[in-house]
Amino acid sequence: MNLTQKILNAHLVSGKPVAGEEVSIRIDQTLTQDSTGTMAYLQFEAMGIGRVRTMKSVAYIDHNTLQTGFENADDHQYIQSVTKKHGIFCSKPGNGICHQVHLERFGVPGLTLLGSDSHTPTGGGIGMLAIGAGGLDVAVAMGGGAYYLTYPKVVGIRLSGKLPYGVAAKDIILEVLRRLTVKGGVGKVMEYIGEGVKTLTVPERATIANMGAELGATTSVFPSDEVTRAFLKAQGREADFRELAADADAEYDEIVDINLDTLEPLVAQPHMPDNVDTVKNVGPIKVDQVFIGSCTNSSYQDMMRVARILKGKTVHPDVSLVIGPGSKQVLTMLARNGALAEMLGAGARILESACGPCIGMGQSPKTNAISVRTNNRNFYARSGTASAGIYLTSCETAAITALTGVLSDPRTLDLDLTVEQPKEFEVNDNLVIPPVAEGQEDTVDVVRGPNIKPFPLGHDLENAVTGKVLLKMEDNITTDHIMPSNAKLLPFRSNIPHLADFCLTPVDETFPARAKEEKGGILVAGANYGQGSSREHAALVPLYLGIRAVAAKSFARIHQANLINNGILPLTFADEKDYDRIDQGDTLTLPGIREKIEAGEEILELKNETKNETYAVKMPLTERQRGMILSGGLINYIRSHS
Amino acid sequence: MNLTQKILNAHLVSGKPVAGEEVSIRIDQTLTQDSTGTMAYLQFEAMGIGRVRTMKSVAYIDHNTLQTGFENADDHQYIQSVTKKHGIFCSKPGNGICHQVHLERFGVPGLTLLGSDSHTPTGGGIGMLAIGAGGLDVAVAMGGGAYYLTYPKVVGIRLSGKLPYGVAAKDIILEVLRRLTVKGGVGKVMEYIGEGVKTLTVPERATIANMGAELGATTSVFPSDEVTRAFLKAQGREADFRELAADADAEYDEIVDINLDTLEPLVAQPHMPDNVDTVKNVGPIKVDQVFIGSCTNSSYQDMMRVARILKGKTVHPDVSLVIGPGSKQVLTMLARNGALAEMLGAGARILESACGPCIGMGQSPKTNAISVRTNNRNFYARSGTASAGIYLTSCETAAITALTGVLSDPRTLDLDLTVEQPKEFEVNDNLVIPPVAEGQEDTVDVVRGPNIKPFPLGHDLENAVTGKVLLKMEDNITTDHIMPSNAKLLPFRSNIPHLADFCLTPVDETFPARAKEEKGGILVAGANYGQGSSREHAALVPLYLGIRAVAAKSFARIHQANLINNGILPLTFADEKDYDRIDQGDTLTLPGIREKIEAGEEILELKNETKNETYAVKMPLTERQRGMILSGGLINYIRSHS
Repeated sequence: MNLTQKILNAHLVSGKPVAGEEVSIRIDQTLTQDSTGTMAYLQFEAMGIGRVRTMKSVAYIDHNTLQTGFENADDHQYIQSVTKKHGIFCSKPGNGICHQVHLERFGVPGLTLLGSDSHTPTGGGIGMLAIGAGGLDVAVAMGGGAYYLTYPKVVGIRLSGKLPYGVAAKDIILEVLRRLTVKGGVGKVMEYIGEGVKTLTVPERATIANMGAELGATTSVFPSDEVTRAFLKAQGREADFRELAADADAEYDEIVDINLDTLEPLVAQPHMPDNVDTVKNVGPIKVDQVFIGSCTNSSYQDMMRVARILKGKTVHPDVSLVIGPGSKQVLTMLARNGALAEMLGAGARILESACGPCIGMGQSPKTNAISVRTNNRNFYARSGTASAGIYLTSCETAAITALTGVLSDPRTLDLDLTVEQPKEFEVNDNLVIPPVAEGQEDTVDVVRGPNIKPFPLGHDLENAVTGKVLLKMEDNITTDHIMPSNAKLLPFRSNIPHLADFCLTPVDETFPARAKEEKGGILVAGANYGQGSSREHAALVPLYLGIRAVAAKSFARIHQANLINNGILPLTFADEKDYDRIDQGDTLTLPGIREKIEAGEEILELKNETKNETYAVKMPLTERQRGMILSGGLINYIRSHS
Repeated sequence: MNLTQKILNAHLVSGKPVAGEEVSIRIDQTLTQDSTGTMAYLQFEAMGIGRVRTMKSVAYIDHNTLQTGFENADDHQYIQSVTKKHGIFCSKPGNGICHQVHLERFGVPGLTLLGSDSHTPTGGGIGMLAIGAGGLDVAVAMGGGAYYLTYPKVVGIRLSGKLPYGVAAKDIILEVLRRLTVKGGVGKVMEYIGEGVKTLTVPERATIANMGAELGATTSVFPSDEVTRAFLKAQGREADFRELAADADAEYDEIVDINLDTLEPLVAQPHMPDNVDTVKNVGPIKVDQVFIGSCTNSSYQDMMRVARILKGKTVHPDVSLVIGPGSKQVLTMLARNGALAEMLGAGARILESACGPCIGMGQSPKTNAISVRTNNRNFYARSGTASAGIYLTSCETAAITALTGVLSDPRTLDLDLTVEQPKEFEVNDNLVIPPVAEGQEDTVDVVRGPNIKPFPLGHDLENAVTGKVLLKMEDNITTDHIMPSNAKLLPFRSNIPHLADFCLTPVDETFPARAKEEKGGILVAGANYGQGSSREHAALVPLYLGIRAVAAKSFARIHQANLINNGILPLTFADEKDYDRIDQGDTLTLPGIREKIEAGEEILELKNETKNETYAVKMPLTERQRGMILSGGLINYIRSHS
């Protein structure tokens, strides 16, 4: 077996371990960050489970750290108090980026980690099977529930040789992206194998596993070897080490060969992480901003190399160089050993250890800027400046570029860039607040500021669902239509009533008011309803507004699952032409719906009371989904089954 | 003579040096920050002067450093390029807070400094006469124009004794505020004298001079003595030193005696800096956030003391401790000597060296929070969280409070808090971009992003001003009504067209659209029109909208001056009852207005064409103001007189 199969199979709860089959696995550890975590903990509370049932769950506060209003700090306090009560560790703001800190202090080879952040696969750098998921999935896992996924194909990425001077781990993952594209990893786990793996440090492996997310992969994983042991030992955690590797005769669904000797410094050009070319080919374009940091490239090793390059130099006058070391540990060590002073001396701006510019939280560059960044995504407008072009590179490329003012090749440096891995990292977990001891839960008051609103819950399915068609929509409605997300709305992710006033407003500004007046109803849509981002809020907010069913020509997969998770009926027209027969304002009924679903019927009757017509609609469900729909959503289902 | 008189009289350009008389003085140095600076440089450009005529002018970027959209970075680039062209030094973001950096690197005893920031008086810590003013005043000073002010009364604040253990310079200025109140300094300069002065370091003096702004004082000033010489020498600037003191027999309009021996740690309670009591009396209230930093308390000495208190300890779990060292110099030295590592080790969040939380730019505390801060203002809602209560203290009080979680008295510490003044500060001005050499101005292109809009300019007064009454307002309209300022609008301070869409909307939402449709007109208002903040935008924006005159029962002093500076006629009803005779929509005319003003007439005819009536209105002007009104504002006036 390969390493992926070994870990997955050791955690299998249900299903056949065959690529393409739905399986469920036991989750050992979870992590959340604050922009998804607040809702995840509200959901966890709603499940009525006293204490987490994982081996370790950690809540990180690393996204909303600018705090330009009371909302963020309210969320922070809610997270800190709710985690303390329920057995979860809370990493306070300033302690660092979730993936960097988790790797340093909590990750364990061979365990499963589910995180409500798409870059959770970073843990693959020490041989974890670490997967990103929605907040509700993580809440379920915290409650001891299994995680459902499609058993993946496994791609062996076979590394040979050794990185040449000035070429970095970042260039390896950029090369993988160049070859496989941003869709190349869908349904797959990328497993790194071959002699070249041994030449890579843990932070280097973590950089690669982290940005594997950009392939669309389920996750990426490295073996756990002596390099891993040394890293964990230096973190005072040698006891967590466990050697792990694929069997010698392991099989892979696909093999990708990369010879490290031949790699060059690469750059992902705007606006996609797979738009990769060599730094040499792209040439010395003039640069306005350089950002070094993010969960991809903010380790001690990365930062020490950057300090080495900056030492005694000065940032180009036309460049704003921003550096965000990844964790309190990294930043403290740099402050201790003089490296931070070198960065500052060169004119770098040092940010708090947090996600920051990578997620557009600050440091938006100027109009039409060229910004060279070490993070993982360069999507259009993600920097907060729609006209800017973001180029993704290694730390070495970014650092030399900050000095020259033009995109530059670090191989031209004449410096020793070797960074010894520390024999002992500076360990001080005093910003991680532990939970109260078991049995002490009642001593903790969960604090909810005015931005923390109760979370809407569905209810048992009634036997006749009736409602007015509140909105009739066209094809290709996205989750950005259903629940817009922007800088104005992001601080309100824990405030469904506030978000509700913006639900579907890009389609019809009057929708929220009408939905409230009618106390809910039914939505009708064309094909591919709910495409785009996976955000759960596109189901939660309609649930809050009383939406009971959506009848559409077809649904996007993730949104359909989110509707079921929240007890909203996703109905597909058996005959698409029936879509044309319904008008906004018609009253629709699903007679005897509960009994029919209990009986396992998949073709249902949708009656148009206004027109006195009946349409056939389909709703095929697995047994678990049937349970969710009957209970009014996943949380109720878990409550009634635990 | 006292020191204030010596410096003022040495710089006198016009007027009698007698308290209460209008005088004008020569300005040696100027500083701007970015939230006022962008407009100041647009105004400077509009004056058509090639190169600054001051001894030194510095533009700092320290306010809008979060950069949550392209607007801030656009402003930064505009400032960096326009200053390079016109002979001004530009301190890039990351170099620190204007007042801290100016003290370290540029301030010179005995010189005058005019700054477009109300805390410019910080320079008084090294014996400068440093005054805060509006951006246009600073622009005029950069162009070589004199600064007009009321010759102040001088208050001698006579210090005796020596601060006891745990009592700080901050407690001295809090004591002054307790005694004199926030209105106690209006029209006065606070001059520090007496034996106690010698016991205070330059950073301590600067803290006191800085927060003298909260007294409403014109400025505060300390003598320049051996302590000053040592500070400048350690900055590599001994050549800038000049000994300065009041004559032995100097007279003061008032004397305030403070015995340092008897002072205790003090705290200004919400929501006014003069709401001062002892830390002991206020008692151990529970604290949610502590902020140490701002132009008041972010020196090397302050930070070293804080590090001493935090070393080896951990911040209370319920407290978010945020520290913002004041400058790149301070931060680099802390990173070099291990003090920063101690702060981080204790769990402090380190922010970029900038104004930050003091101006509500980030770190807004949670709902109903108690936040202990070392900055200078605790006005209602200024933190960004309206429900929060801000308590102002010394660094020592703030640091121990962060550890205990309740407001605490630093005298209970059992630590040596002595901080040796550095014999040599780490000097590296590589984030200060010098201007091009004289004659090279044409080599610099001034870069204006889409957020930098041209600045509206008035025109020569016509002989008959006519316009419709666009809005009739009540008494006590504030500049917040005329030009609202909030987090949404602050990034647009250089974009008058954008701001125009919000002009007077708190009074009438339709006003901007109607003003544009009518292509301008006249405003009618009750008493005390334009009270509140001094913002120039409350005149600039109406100018942009074509407002030619405001007829009111009375005007607030500063706004009246701003109207004249921008060539808008401030007319006061001779008979207040005439206010009642005018309706919104009436057409008003000022016949022969230019000739009358040229002839020095102060009583003018305001004709109501709609009602066929004529009212007497008053507009008394000095000769200089008459010039401004005739030329269409101060900038045009300077252009035509230079």
